[in-house]
Amino acid sequence: MRTSRVEAFSDGVLAIIITIMVLELRVPEGHEWTDLFVLWPKVLSYLISFVYVGIYWNNHHHLFQLVEWVNGAVLLANLHLLFWLSLFPFVTAWAGESHFAAIPMTCYGAVALMAAISYTILQVVIVRAHESNSRVARAAGSDRKGRISIAAYLVAIIAPFFGEVGVWVSGVCLAGVAVMWFLPDRRVERTLAEPGPS
Amino acid sequence: MRTSRVEAFSDGVLAIIITIMVLELRVPEGHEWTDLFVLWPKVLSYLISFVYVGIYWNNHHHLFQLVEWVNGAVLLANLHLLFWLSLFPFVTAWAGESHFAAIPMTCYGAVALMAAISYTILQVVIVRAHESNSRVARAAGSDRKGRISIAAYLVAIIAPFFGEVGVWVSGVCLAGVAVMWFLPDRRVERTLAEPGPS
Amino acid sequence: MRTSRVEAFSDGVLAIIITIMVLELRVPEGHEWTDLFVLWPKVLSYLISFVYVGIYWNNHHHLFQLVEWVNGAVLLANLHLLFWLSLFPFVTAWAGESHFAAIPMTCYGAVALMAAISYTILQVVIVRAHESNSRVARAAGSDRKGRISIAAYLVAIIAPFFGEVGVWVSGVCLAGVAVMWFLPDRRVERTLAEPGPS
Amino acid sequence: MRTSRVEAFSDGVLAIIITIMVLELRVPEGHEWTDLFVLWPKVLSYLISFVYVGIYWNNHHHLFQLVEWVNGAVLLANLHLLFWLSLFPFVTAWAGESHFAAIPMTCYGAVALMAAISYTILQVVIVRAHESNSRVARAAGSDRKGRISIAAYLVAIIAPFFGEVGVWVSGVCLAGVAVMWFLPDRRVERTLAEPGPS
Repeated sequence: MRTSRVEAFSDGVLAIIITIMVLELRVPEGHEWTDLFVLWPKVLSYLISFVYVGIYWNNHHHLFQLVEWVNGAVLLANLHLLFWLSLFPFVTAWAGESHFAAIPMTCYGAVALMAAISYTILQVVIVRAHESNSRVARAAGSDRKGRISIAAYLVAIIAPFFGEVGVWVSGVCLAGVAVMWFLPDRRVERTLAEPGPS
Repeated sequence: MRTSRVEAFSDGVLAIIITIMVLELRVPEGHEWTDLFVLWPKVLSYLISFVYVGIYWNNHHHLFQLVEWVNGAVLLANLHLLFWLSLFPFVTAWAGESHFAAIPMTCYGAVALMAAISYTILQVVIVRAHESNSRVARAAGSDRKGRISIAAYLVAIIAPFFGEVGVWVSGVCLAGVAVMWFLPDRRVERTLAEPGPS
Repeated sequence: MRTSRVEAFSDGVLAIIITIMVLELRVPEGHEWTDLFVLWPKVLSYLISFVYVGIYWNNHHHLFQLVEWVNGAVLLANLHLLFWLSLFPFVTAWAGESHFAAIPMTCYGAVALMAAISYTILQVVIVRAHESNSRVARAAGSDRKGRISIAAYLVAIIAPFFGEVGVWVSGVCLAGVAVMWFLPDRRVERTLAEPGPS
Repeated sequence: MRTSRVEAFSDGVLAIIITIMVLELRVPEGHEWTDLFVLWPKVLSYLISFVYVGIYWNNHHHLFQLVEWVNGAVLLANLHLLFWLSLFPFVTAWAGESHFAAIPMTCYGAVALMAAISYTILQVVIVRAHESNSRVARAAGSDRKGRISIAAYLVAIIAPFFGEVGVWVSGVCLAGVAVMWFLPDRRVERTLAEPGPS
């Protein structure tokens, strides 16, 4: 099966997720600087989530460059990933609105973790659908950044249970992962550059 | 006529339907676990509707793999299907907000039924636009899963009139259909795999 | 210039317009039949606008089948059309919420009229960008349905000023145009079927 | 890397941004002309932002006509541009709701400035990814309209600090840039028309 429609549908869903988050930035009632400044937690959580969803789109784009065909399992794994990503607007708004309270931070971390796990599942399912010496199989290899992210998400989920400092640790973990992934995946770019057997 | 733009427009509408449903998950006012847990009916109805719309996208994708051209009737049948699917966010939110009350469940079942009927109409119109030995005509054949779904939707519509137990029966029917369709349509995949005459 | 991106962007905007209108169908507070039935003006205006936007997508699709290239003027004329179509959610919601009051009906008719005019402008600008014996130029020809629509819109705009009966006349005109256009444009389909010189 | 998916994702995000702005045109409670006329600041700010986002789509479309491939840096620069454009619905609604108060006007100007800067960055990053005699590099050249816009945005940001007249100056600057850019970029069209070495 062709990959073009999976990419188009995923592009559509990701474009909508990344854009409707801005709807949570409700217009202030007044029109003074203070009315704008009280929005800072919402703007900050919007910014971080924008980077997250942007990174997922980026990595999804890189991954599907190497995908030669898709089967039913890949479609389901992709839908599964989109489900967890679709919860980002909810946790983003909750984290911002609650001024980064403990439980919303834990939930944000949990959604980020589930998205990371479902991305890993998608990768595994795609690799299985290809031959072992296909370009996508060789590009998958060991995923150091993925493992670091999952560890950081676990910290981000647990830390808020340990008081105010824990919430800060959680925030630093989540922002740190966003920064780390900001650079696109070199492994895939390198594999694309080399002449493939396919 | 080429099929690419019909697919692109349908992808767009389905991507938006599946994503705006999350807007109904309004941010809780508090930030305790209980504030999150009271949302469970909304989260559950969102999850089931996500699976439903995801399945429709999936089946639509499989179906259009075999479509060679479209005419005006196919475009109208496709718009008709999109109309009923566009009502999913409404019934999803109502079912969730009312904690699965009887009448919202009946309405959900009715929208699911109309979507299933309009999908069947779309299939018939597409088959008519092709020759009788085309791949899409052979793939249509007998549609056992479709018939089971329609029976389940009818039960889901009628059962809530018979008290609390009926509402549960309705919910089980609707969730059961979602689970049944979760596996993609093997018939189409098999037809795609075999060498077609076209 | 290629037409593919203009089509993709227009598909995206039209898909969003047609789908966000359903957001105006707010979830009823109660969960009885009466809570649903009071929504009938909103459902009716949603249905008619869905048909309208669907028809525009349909005709846009047919038109661009024949377009060979676009220039800056075509892009602007297309944006101009999208602007007026983007006001459909607003007038749809207002007409429904006001139970089809006189002034909202006039506004609905005015938006429908401006959309029709901007579609005509788009057609003219496209024809000018092509040679006189191109397929799109021959397909444009005399536009009887377009002229009838514009006359009906003018009636729909003016009639509500003449009391309750006028509002009904306005509604019948608007619904009638929707029904008339429901059949796709045969002229274009015929031109597509004949072997073109290009 | 192919450019098609970057274009598709950008088209999706821009289509959503341009369309969700209309959601801020909330339905009036009454249904008289006065209920409509009080919306004029919102309609005006919607119109100007529609033109702005439309122009960005237009220029983005023209620019990517000449782009032969993209790398990770281009993807990031493109996301950066989309981030600033995604803030247009917020500043549009605020400027309209506050009847063009001073601080919302300054914020509108700031978002317009950041979008212009990020577009310039995108252009620079794209040119760097291509050879110096590529068509995109020759088309970039001196960007007079871009420099005028940035100057106008700076005036639009600062002027509102100088009282009522300043707010008017700010509005005229912002509207003037919209009008200036309304004509598509001839430089790119000319370069596309000439036979390229690539």
